[in-house]
Amino acid sequence: MQRYFLEEDYTAKEQYEVVGEPYHHMVRVMRMTPGNQVYLVFANQVSIVAEISGITESAVCLVEKEKEQQEKELPVAITIASGYPKGDKLDLIVQKGTELGAAGFIGFPAKTSVVKWDGKKLAKKQQRLEKIAQEAAEQSHRQVTPTVALLDSEKTFIQQLTQFDMIVIAYEESAKQGEVSQLAQILQTVKAGSRILAIFGPEGGLTPAEVEQFMAAGGQPCGLGPRILRTETAPFYLLSAASYQLELLKVSN
Amino acid sequence: MQRYFLEEDYTAKEQYEVVGEPYHHMVRVMRMTPGNQVYLVFANQVSIVAEISGITESAVCLVEKEKEQQEKELPVAITIASGYPKGDKLDLIVQKGTELGAAGFIGFPAKTSVVKWDGKKLAKKQQRLEKIAQEAAEQSHRQVTPTVALLDSEKTFIQQLTQFDMIVIAYEESAKQGEVSQLAQILQTVKAGSRILAIFGPEGGLTPAEVEQFMAAGGQPCGLGPRILRTETAPFYLLSAASYQLELLKVSN
Repeated sequence: MQRYFLEEDYTAKEQYEVVGEPYHHMVRVMRMTPGNQVYLVFANQVSIVAEISGITESAVCLVEKEKEQQEKELPVAITIASGYPKGDKLDLIVQKGTELGAAGFIGFPAKTSVVKWDGKKLAKKQQRLEKIAQEAAEQSHRQVTPTVALLDSEKTFIQQLTQFDMIVIAYEESAKQGEVSQLAQILQTVKAGSRILAIFGPEGGLTPAEVEQFMAAGGQPCGLGPRILRTETAPFYLLSAASYQLELLKVSN
Repeated sequence: MQRYFLEEDYTAKEQYEVVGEPYHHMVRVMRMTPGNQVYLVFANQVSIVAEISGITESAVCLVEKEKEQQEKELPVAITIASGYPKGDKLDLIVQKGTELGAAGFIGFPAKTSVVKWDGKKLAKKQQRLEKIAQEAAEQSHRQVTPTVALLDSEKTFIQQLTQFDMIVIAYEESAKQGEVSQLAQILQTVKAGSRILAIFGPEGGLTPAEVEQFMAAGGQPCGLGPRILRTETAPFYLLSAASYQLELLKVSN
């Protein structure tokens, strides 16, 4: 069933009117007719199953059939911060990271980042990534579309670190030294609702100076198992491990 | 440090001679000289740190400095079976799956697979995927290069199911129905050394008839969390969850 994200908050209504792009998609692309059902996802994270009751020149009218029952969002909000990697790896990180439950994505120029993007390029790139996140959120049945912020300096990034309850640093040297238990300890004790930032270096890794700065802001270096993961693979590991610990293990124990 | 996979088994020797492609890479590509160190990974999964003692016209001579200490391989052997997906998604599955620790990959034509590959095409594709697996194994510091087998019929695939100790079926309907604990139960109780097969459908999913066949062979349908994962993302989740449970949690508890 198709899934549409609306900008308004949910309030109980006899009828919902959908206009603009989702209208276009329902009527012109999917050629929906009265009786068809869709998911409507509201800005305040409520999602409902709704049935089309009528279609006008500019709006689709829908009535609520039921609330969507299942919780689709990770119990903690994990933001993935990536030192700008090469090529279109950020596209892959945002697409797969959205499917795997990330709350947001931050890009920043790390010391060893090869690419240099100016303001205009960053704005264009951010728009593209927001679209990728939106599509992946719809496809994976998310209740939230992750945010995307591409920063133009590492200083700005460091200033934002205080917004998080917990900072995890994926540090290759931790993996090489066989550090394996830090992430498990964090995920086993984290409180629901926590805002976690997970920082990943670009291909060349984070420099010891960068790791020191992030640690000074409260960051904890973590290994992600004994194998060396590429910069775009490491976030998938972290998000999957979080889901396994918080959504699968918690339920089965 | 560079990592080279050799076809011979490890036996203690005063000197190791490397010829052929790894010779070419050490001498011509990396321009190594006596005194440089590399990892040598032998066919029987022993890996050593070795130092170049001399270089001839056709061979690099090396002496063992020490055994590689850290265990890099998952304690269970997980084979990823993918119903042929579209485009080059299998490339991504093999590359990232190798980083994440898969023991092998099987491709098979599932009922809803759109692509139809004949014998010649399959042989070429398999060669390409073997090269991707090899490169990812070197890059991620694996001790084994995963196997790749592309099958030309689903019947052949089903005949191979008996080779495994345990079969996990990633089934979207399980996820939709909120099944969340099966995978956790399996990973918490699996014995070290087990051969696990994890089956993933193509974009269109597995049909109920296919799932029934796999279940008749002992397969257990599992959800992979509440979000709907794309066909190429689901194996990353499963392998990461296995590493988290068997390599991170096991150590920290």
